[in-house]
Amino acid sequence: MKKTQIILLSSVMFFCSICSAQTGNDFKPATSNQPGKQYPQVNSEGRVRASILAPQALKVQLDIGGKKYDLTKDEKGVWMGESLPQDEGFHYYQLNIDGASVPDPGSLFFYGAGRWGSGIEVPAHDRDFYALKNVPHGLISENIYFSTLTNAWRRCFVYTPASYYTNTKERYPVLYLQHGSGEDETGWAVQGKANLIVDNLIAESKAVPMIIVMDNGYANKPQDQAAIDNKTRPVSLFEEVMINEIIPMIDAKFRTRSDKDHRAIAGLSMGANQTIRIIMNHLDKFSYIGGFSGTPNYPSTDVIDPASFLEGKFKDGTAINKQLKLFWLGLGTKEPNPFPGSVGAFRAMLDKQGIKNIYYESPATAHEWLTWRRDLKEYASLLFK
Amino acid sequence: MKKTQIILLSSVMFFCSICSAQTGNDFKPATSNQPGKQYPQVNSEGRVRASILAPQALKVQLDIGGKKYDLTKDEKGVWMGESLPQDEGFHYYQLNIDGASVPDPGSLFFYGAGRWGSGIEVPAHDRDFYALKNVPHGLISENIYFSTLTNAWRRCFVYTPASYYTNTKERYPVLYLQHGSGEDETGWAVQGKANLIVDNLIAESKAVPMIIVMDNGYANKPQDQAAIDNKTRPVSLFEEVMINEIIPMIDAKFRTRSDKDHRAIAGLSMGANQTIRIIMNHLDKFSYIGGFSGTPNYPSTDVIDPASFLEGKFKDGTAINKQLKLFWLGLGTKEPNPFPGSVGAFRAMLDKQGIKNIYYESPATAHEWLTWRRDLKEYASLLFK
Repeated sequence: MKKTQIILLSSVMFFCSICSAQTGNDFKPATSNQPGKQYPQVNSEGRVRASILAPQALKVQLDIGGKKYDLTKDEKGVWMGESLPQDEGFHYYQLNIDGASVPDPGSLFFYGAGRWGSGIEVPAHDRDFYALKNVPHGLISENIYFSTLTNAWRRCFVYTPASYYTNTKERYPVLYLQHGSGEDETGWAVQGKANLIVDNLIAESKAVPMIIVMDNGYANKPQDQAAIDNKTRPVSLFEEVMINEIIPMIDAKFRTRSDKDHRAIAGLSMGANQTIRIIMNHLDKFSYIGGFSGTPNYPSTDVIDPASFLEGKFKDGTAINKQLKLFWLGLGTKEPNPFPGSVGAFRAMLDKQGIKNIYYESPATAHEWLTWRRDLKEYASLLFK
Repeated sequence: MKKTQIILLSSVMFFCSICSAQTGNDFKPATSNQPGKQYPQVNSEGRVRASILAPQALKVQLDIGGKKYDLTKDEKGVWMGESLPQDEGFHYYQLNIDGASVPDPGSLFFYGAGRWGSGIEVPAHDRDFYALKNVPHGLISENIYFSTLTNAWRRCFVYTPASYYTNTKERYPVLYLQHGSGEDETGWAVQGKANLIVDNLIAESKAVPMIIVMDNGYANKPQDQAAIDNKTRPVSLFEEVMINEIIPMIDAKFRTRSDKDHRAIAGLSMGANQTIRIIMNHLDKFSYIGGFSGTPNYPSTDVIDPASFLEGKFKDGTAINKQLKLFWLGLGTKEPNPFPGSVGAFRAMLDKQGIKNIYYESPATAHEWLTWRRDLKEYASLLFK
């Protein structure tokens, strides 16, 4: 009797699990929702279900992953509908109501794609590494400063590890970490979860305690307002701002280790392009470089000639190997063109020049934040050791 | 000839100034807009002009200040319209598109009224006191912690003054500053502009450098999830969390002066109610109290009997005067009922008991953030002196 019951129970459970897998009817509110909001939801297939009350609307769509999905209206005027399965990780999205593209009032808001708008977490199988855990937590501090070079107020966010507030004599190495195109200084600390990733690594002794500085990669000459108005590309002063303003400010304000061996730089996409250029101009100031989904030959996929590329900065591989402790590159396996070709051509050049490098591939992710969270986890664990 | 020209010029300017005043045709993008966004706009009368592309929509409204204003559509599908003049200061608002209440994609987003959504700055005549100026700026740090009392992760934002990072031996007094109902720990540091207000006061030597801790006023017993589900009022543990978790954590993590004479507490609306109750239970722990647009008799406007009110905590005015260095209350002159009556009854009780207090009225503002920014400016300038 007992055995039969167990078998029956197992059968029911097995049956339900098939139901669930077949219908994907296990939608739950996304972890990226506003407090108390039931929608949007995500199921185990990675489908996103959106819902909004819009009684008089003629057409409501969920706009995610480059596609628009029609929602349907019930008798109470509530629209609902689902997307196709999305990659695991974080995605920007929006709603479209009778032609108006608006943020979903159910989601928290994130800066990306050039705007503050909705984003959603599709739970990743490896999300534990960026989960909020019962470990000591560092602080994220908003630091406002006036930049003389750009004649503008700027802002960076500074992660200080938990031990910064207990070991008050200790000095810490610094990682300068940059966002991508259309994003800003909030990206790494919000959707990037940089603090939680590094809190967890430090707690497991997989990374050394470090300060992380996240600034804004857009820094234009004030006189280039003309270029902005004319929609031409303004001259970026980011390298000068980083070297002459940000780094001295951070070294003055925080207990840093300010020598080359204790300073790293990394960035994603546009930020990778920028930071690789910066380090090659300042091999006396940094020892670790990380390029996440980007390289300075972007968008070209052509074979790189080291004699001419970046004014010959990569000509002498032996000298570069002596100067750098780590040249690290990462890419998602589902990234669109031209990233695979572009990063591939850059790697081929490094290999040809005998420049030691580590290459990491994020499984089944595209040009999105789960790729970069994984990159940061891998890269940060190699720093300052 | 020269004289005539000057007269003509003056006439033109005078004429234009009349035009402008008559039509209010001096709309400018709000300072609270997302980077680069042209709408919403505000004019010198305080009217808010909203605009959104919604080609297929049947009806679009601007929902601000408790009223909905119809927008009109042009031939390109762009809707536009204006509100009546709003009070100077900061207001939450939203758009309504065919019955859907959504954030305006043009504005930055703020937490208030129980949601992240749009907000707008109507420039105040006295906005200089919270302007971003070329003065030394403190940091706002996000501090995540686990609360054993509520069995939940919580967060506070901590303002440290600029000198905290130069005078690294100095210890600082602490103000605990609370938000109102439907708001959270982000309110004071974002729409409250607490950091800029105190940066400016310190730079003008009108306030002493201090640490400000902004936590979340909602703190429920874990077992009271039932109360939440049943929509009954859960038992608040905020006082216990403040006394037993937040204050010890801040004193351990930051260079505070941890005696009673160097600890202040204040809050707005619900936060005023909470913090006045807390200080009356802990006159050994705080010396300064600030109640902004709220008192613990809320929502009653009845005469208060000190013998029974708050278990007789206000019975002995002489003892309270010895314990407290400052009992400060503030209110906007345009606040709705029951605030004037409620705060008035509380003040009458203080006066009857001979409890010294300072009362400030914010001119021409209601139960909104400009009232509370002004309160903070006045209150902070009296602390720790």
